[in-house]
Amino acid sequence: MTAQVIDGRKIAAALREVVAEERDTTRACGGRFGLTTISIGENAAASAYLRRIERTAEQLRVPHRSVRLDGSSPAEEVLAAIRELNGDESVSGILVLRPLPSHLDEAKVFAALDPVKDVEAVHPENAGLLALGTPRYIPSTAAAVYHVLDSWLADMGEEPSAFYRGSRIVVVGRSNNVGKPAVSLAYAKQSAVTSVDEWASVGGRLGAHTRRGDVLIVAAGVPGLIRAEHVRAGAVVIDVGINIVEGEGGTPCIVGDVALEEVVGRARAITPVPGGVGPVTDVWLIRNTVLAARYAMGAR
Amino acid sequence: MTAQVIDGRKIAAALREVVAEERDTTRACGGRFGLTTISIGENAAASAYLRRIERTAEQLRVPHRSVRLDGSSPAEEVLAAIRELNGDESVSGILVLRPLPSHLDEAKVFAALDPVKDVEAVHPENAGLLALGTPRYIPSTAAAVYHVLDSWLADMGEEPSAFYRGSRIVVVGRSNNVGKPAVSLAYAKQSAVTSVDEWASVGGRLGAHTRRGDVLIVAAGVPGLIRAEHVRAGAVVIDVGINIVEGEGGTPCIVGDVALEEVVGRARAITPVPGGVGPVTDVWLIRNTVLAARYAMGAR
Repeated sequence: MTAQVIDGRKIAAALREVVAEERDTTRACGGRFGLTTISIGENAAASAYLRRIERTAEQLRVPHRSVRLDGSSPAEEVLAAIRELNGDESVSGILVLRPLPSHLDEAKVFAALDPVKDVEAVHPENAGLLALGTPRYIPSTAAAVYHVLDSWLADMGEEPSAFYRGSRIVVVGRSNNVGKPAVSLAYAKQSAVTSVDEWASVGGRLGAHTRRGDVLIVAAGVPGLIRAEHVRAGAVVIDVGINIVEGEGGTPCIVGDVALEEVVGRARAITPVPGGVGPVTDVWLIRNTVLAARYAMGAR
Repeated sequence: MTAQVIDGRKIAAALREVVAEERDTTRACGGRFGLTTISIGENAAASAYLRRIERTAEQLRVPHRSVRLDGSSPAEEVLAAIRELNGDESVSGILVLRPLPSHLDEAKVFAALDPVKDVEAVHPENAGLLALGTPRYIPSTAAAVYHVLDSWLADMGEEPSAFYRGSRIVVVGRSNNVGKPAVSLAYAKQSAVTSVDEWASVGGRLGAHTRRGDVLIVAAGVPGLIRAEHVRAGAVVIDVGINIVEGEGGTPCIVGDVALEEVVGRARAITPVPGGVGPVTDVWLIRNTVLAARYAMGAR
C-alpha cells in the first residue's frame, strides 16, 4: 500500500471560500472583525507562524495588526497591552504567540485575555468550555486536524459518523494547545481515544500504543518520532509537528513528527509537513476571528 | 487469582484525619468554611448523596446547610439563590446537586457560581484549569478514584510514579463530572490513557478496549456493565458507578457498574459498591470546602 498524501493546501483553499462567506455575512450584519497578534521577543517558529498569519489574513481581507514587545518586557507591560486590546472594538481576536519568554507566567498572561476575544481558546474559561463539550472556540490546530480528516473522509465517500464510531484514535503528545484539545474533540465522535506522551517512547512502548490507532494524530514536537514500525497498516496519519531543523549548509528546513518517506508505505493516508495541517490551521484562526465578531455582536 | 477488595471506608477514615488537620489549620489562620448544597426538586440518587454529605460534614464538623428549591423553580430563582450564596462570607463552597430538572440549563446554572466557591469544579473556568493541568479544585469523584489507587499502591509497597508510567489506564464513560476529569488527571501521570463510551459497548467492542487496561476506571452508570470477560487478568478495577436498582420485594439497592462477583476472580484488586470510591468522594468534597476557605483568604 502506498498512502495517499493529503493535500492540506487544497483543503485550506476550500475552507477559505467558506470563511470568505462567513466574513461577508458577518460584515453585512454589522460585525467588526480584526486580529491582533502579540509577539514578545524573537523566536524563529513564532516568526514563521506570524508570516503565515499575515498572509492568510491578507488573502481573506481580514485586518491584522502585529504588536511587538521586547523580549524583556515586564509582565505589567504585557498585561497592559492585552487590556488595551480587550477594550478596542476594532479588535475581535487576540493571539499571544508562543513561546513566551521564561520570565512571564503563561497562565497569567492568557487569563488576562477577554475570553470573547481569545480566539485560540487559551483562557481557562474557553479551555473549560471545550473540555465540557460546548466550545466557544476550537483551537485552530486541533480544529484543523479534524477538518482535514473530515475533508478526506468526504473525498473518500466515507460516512464520518460510521467511520469515527468504529475507529480508535491515538493522540501522541499532551500539549494544552494541541494534544489535549485533540482528545477532547474526539469525545463527541464516539471513537475510542487514547492519549500517550513521550514517556511511552522513553520506555520503548510507543509502538504498542500507536499501532492500535486507525487514526494516528501526532503532536509531539519531535522530528521523525513516528516511523513505519509505529503505524498500523492502513491507518490515517495526521502529522501536526512543525519542527525547524538544519538542512544542508545550515539551511533551516521544516519537518514534521512523522518520517513520511517510511510511513507512506504503510498508512492509508498521511498529511505532509509542510502543506498538511498547517495551512488549514491558518485559515481556522481567521475563521475564529470572524466568529469572534459575531460573539461580540451578541454581547453588545 | 482472587482480587483484593479495596476497603474505601478505611481509606476515607484515613483521609478524614488529614482533612481534620487541614480544617484546624485553616480555622486557626482565620479561614471561614461552610458548604451549602442546593437541591432542586426530588431525586432519589441526589437525596442519597445529600444524606452522605450531611453525615460527612457532621463527622468533620464542617458547617453544612441545605437549600431546597421546588422542582418547578424558574431559572431566575435558582440564579438568585446562587448569587446570594456567592455573596455570603460564611459559605466557602457551593454544590448544586445533579440532576437538574429538565427546564433548567445546567451550563447557565453552573456558570453563575463564584468560581472560587465552585468546589465540584463545574464552572467552565474550573473545568478549564483542570483540563490545562493546573486545577483549582479536583472534582471529588475523580479525585477519589486516584486517591483510592494511590492508597492501594502505598499499601502494596509499590512506587506510584513507576506504576503509572508503565500502566495503561482505561476510562469507561465520558461524563463531565467523572469520565473526562479522570482522563485529564491521568495526563500528569505519564500513563497511556484511553477513553471509551457506551458506543463501544453497543458495537460489541467494549472488551477489546477494556481488556487493555492495567487500571480500569468505570463510570458509565450502567449496572453490571463490566463482566469478567471485559477485564484484563491482574487489572486494578475502580468502580465509580452508583446505581439504584430494585431488590427483592422492591427494596432499593445500590450497585456499581462492575459485576463484582465475577470480576473478583480475574482482577488483582477491585473497589466494591457501596464502600469503595463513594466514602472517599464524600470526604474529598469537604476537603475542597476547606480548601475553598483558603482560596477566599487569599482573595481578601
